[in-house]
Amino acid sequence: MEISFANRVGSIRPSAIRELLKLTQQPGVISFAGGHPAPESFPIEEMKKISIKVLEEQGRSALQYSATEGYKPLREFIAKRMKNSGIEVEPDQILITNGSQQGLDFSGKLFINEGDVIICESPSYVGALNAFRAYMPKFVEVPMDDEGMKIGELEKALEQNPKAKFIYVVPTFQNPTGRTMSLERRKKLVQLATQYGVLILEDNPYAELRFEGEEIPAIKHFDKDGIVIYLGTFSKTFCPGLRIGWVAASNEIIRKYVLAKQGADLQANTMSQMELYKFLEEYDFDEHVRKIREIYIKRRNAMLETMKVEFPDNLKYTYPNGGLFTWVELPKGIDAEEILKKSIDQKVAFVPGSSFYPNGGNENCFRLNYGTMPEDLIVEGVKRLGKVLRAL
Amino acid sequence: MEISFANRVGSIRPSAIRELLKLTQQPGVISFAGGHPAPESFPIEEMKKISIKVLEEQGRSALQYSATEGYKPLREFIAKRMKNSGIEVEPDQILITNGSQQGLDFSGKLFINEGDVIICESPSYVGALNAFRAYMPKFVEVPMDDEGMKIGELEKALEQNPKAKFIYVVPTFQNPTGRTMSLERRKKLVQLATQYGVLILEDNPYAELRFEGEEIPAIKHFDKDGIVIYLGTFSKTFCPGLRIGWVAASNEIIRKYVLAKQGADLQANTMSQMELYKFLEEYDFDEHVRKIREIYIKRRNAMLETMKVEFPDNLKYTYPNGGLFTWVELPKGIDAEEILKKSIDQKVAFVPGSSFYPNGGNENCFRLNYGTMPEDLIVEGVKRLGKVLRAL
Repeated sequence: MEISFANRVGSIRPSAIRELLKLTQQPGVISFAGGHPAPESFPIEEMKKISIKVLEEQGRSALQYSATEGYKPLREFIAKRMKNSGIEVEPDQILITNGSQQGLDFSGKLFINEGDVIICESPSYVGALNAFRAYMPKFVEVPMDDEGMKIGELEKALEQNPKAKFIYVVPTFQNPTGRTMSLERRKKLVQLATQYGVLILEDNPYAELRFEGEEIPAIKHFDKDGIVIYLGTFSKTFCPGLRIGWVAASNEIIRKYVLAKQGADLQANTMSQMELYKFLEEYDFDEHVRKIREIYIKRRNAMLETMKVEFPDNLKYTYPNGGLFTWVELPKGIDAEEILKKSIDQKVAFVPGSSFYPNGGNENCFRLNYGTMPEDLIVEGVKRLGKVLRAL
Repeated sequence: MEISFANRVGSIRPSAIRELLKLTQQPGVISFAGGHPAPESFPIEEMKKISIKVLEEQGRSALQYSATEGYKPLREFIAKRMKNSGIEVEPDQILITNGSQQGLDFSGKLFINEGDVIICESPSYVGALNAFRAYMPKFVEVPMDDEGMKIGELEKALEQNPKAKFIYVVPTFQNPTGRTMSLERRKKLVQLATQYGVLILEDNPYAELRFEGEEIPAIKHFDKDGIVIYLGTFSKTFCPGLRIGWVAASNEIIRKYVLAKQGADLQANTMSQMELYKFLEEYDFDEHVRKIREIYIKRRNAMLETMKVEFPDNLKYTYPNGGLFTWVELPKGIDAEEILKKSIDQKVAFVPGSSFYPNGGNENCFRLNYGTMPEDLIVEGVKRLGKVLRAL
């Protein structure tokens, strides 16, 4: 029998990265592909103690259904931490989600009618683009430079699309480019969005992973009218396997996210929320994040220093001050997918850049993640990749 | 600023039950409202041992990202168990979801265009109706009797809606009625669906909780052409707080569910999947389920025996042979919401029936869950409810 799927199914694409991950799981492959955090950073011993405590003290609650909004002490912790970083938000304005990916899906579900415009950075996070695609938007891309979205181009995009549903940004250590939007542009972004009455969806998974330079306030810090929806996650600062992220938004908006969560899967994992909270309560989270940063600084240095030596001179790439990614631009006309094939022969994997552009093109770029591999393998992998690139 | 949500947001409703749950969490309330399993049945001591083992043996994997499809050994276990109960399914035809609720949401996402027809039992599971509503279908209800959907009425519905996207059924110990579709009707359902080329969505969370009588094969057992999509869950046989369910479907269809999962939240909780599998591996799951059944048999008996004595004679209600629910029909013209108000004054809660009918009406019904409360409170709660009902 012919299966008649909904029209939106034609828009859903397999994640290039998740498909690639299957390849990179072959033994011996040096992977710069996934967005995986360093497993060395996972607090396994602490988790053992915590699991026992949660089960002993609250076992029946931990294994039972719980509130759709999420575990209240966890929401209170998040609100407090956000306040400390300059964002005014109440616990009741927070919904716990399965990683920030679920916040992206809900954002599509709650705002996008078929054909609606979403404004995004060019390039942008492919997982977000795929989540939005299920709701069939039109993507309008705003070019970037090293300070993030070009504001003149953003204003043009808003002028031409005043009914855009939201502006999607990863302002800090962006996935895929590693770039950070400057303070000045953040202010202008909020000002323009307010002027045009368009929401901002701020996706902020990497901000805590700053290696150097001064902290820049989140875009939501500048939000006086509740036009910024903020997505956070513990996937990069704790453990992604527990799938815990959150949405923070105005009362009116968060209520709709809660309804979306009810219909989608009732609630986040009760036990994992309690375990995470127990960790936050009993250990020094800032110290834990500091340790993670130290791992990544070394890896960023290993990758970027080796790239400087081993990559041909005609390549451009970003120098990230935090997060997990650097972004490489090959000369026009060279296809990163072809490079990937040759690179896989040398057992090195990365993600070609084209899928980060919602409307395609830009085949000459690729993304490298320095977060997953130890330094010696990073050096070795970049060397091999350098050979492939110099052979062109 | 005026927030412009997507049109579908107008169709999303708060879950009557989840809202009610907040009320019932007040101390001293005897709740027959939620679909909560008995917390006494949670294997807390075993979970303590298992958590340690998983973290010791596979800590880094357990806390890391993992495959969208789900943890392979868990999918193999599920496939084997389904085969043992007469359903031919391979591990690769299974996707792990966050409870079966997520399978319901994905079913809406993958099949429903605005205005498409979904055929369902009348009444039907309200959580499914709410999940589907986000995709704006038209619901066609098929009346039931004690053997499930009336097949003549189903055939009429199919004749009038040959392009219906799927027939949604909870065939065994249905939520909300506790009814079970007979063997003969299951066969006819598959035959009719095949004839009309309409998919069946079989939601089967309660089948393992049979108290008496012979097991009836799942609808998917009769599926020779891959037209049945099967939703299963560990929420009623293990712990709902871990949010682990699954979808089983043909290769063509399951691939789309995997894409939906990628976009929605990447994957299920890695650690919880590994813990559950460890439990299945190290303990006797059949024995565990048998213990749960024993708890519920006593509670079903306590509720139904007390109802027989305490409820007025002009009420009809179902006698469930398994699962968690009985369904009460008041004389026409009596509104169960009014009864609920009086009942809450007596600190007893239940769910009024109207929300289980997608197109409304039937205000004279309500659902009772005997699964959550111990016997003495069940007896006390039914007595109080009986007083309210007899005062009418």
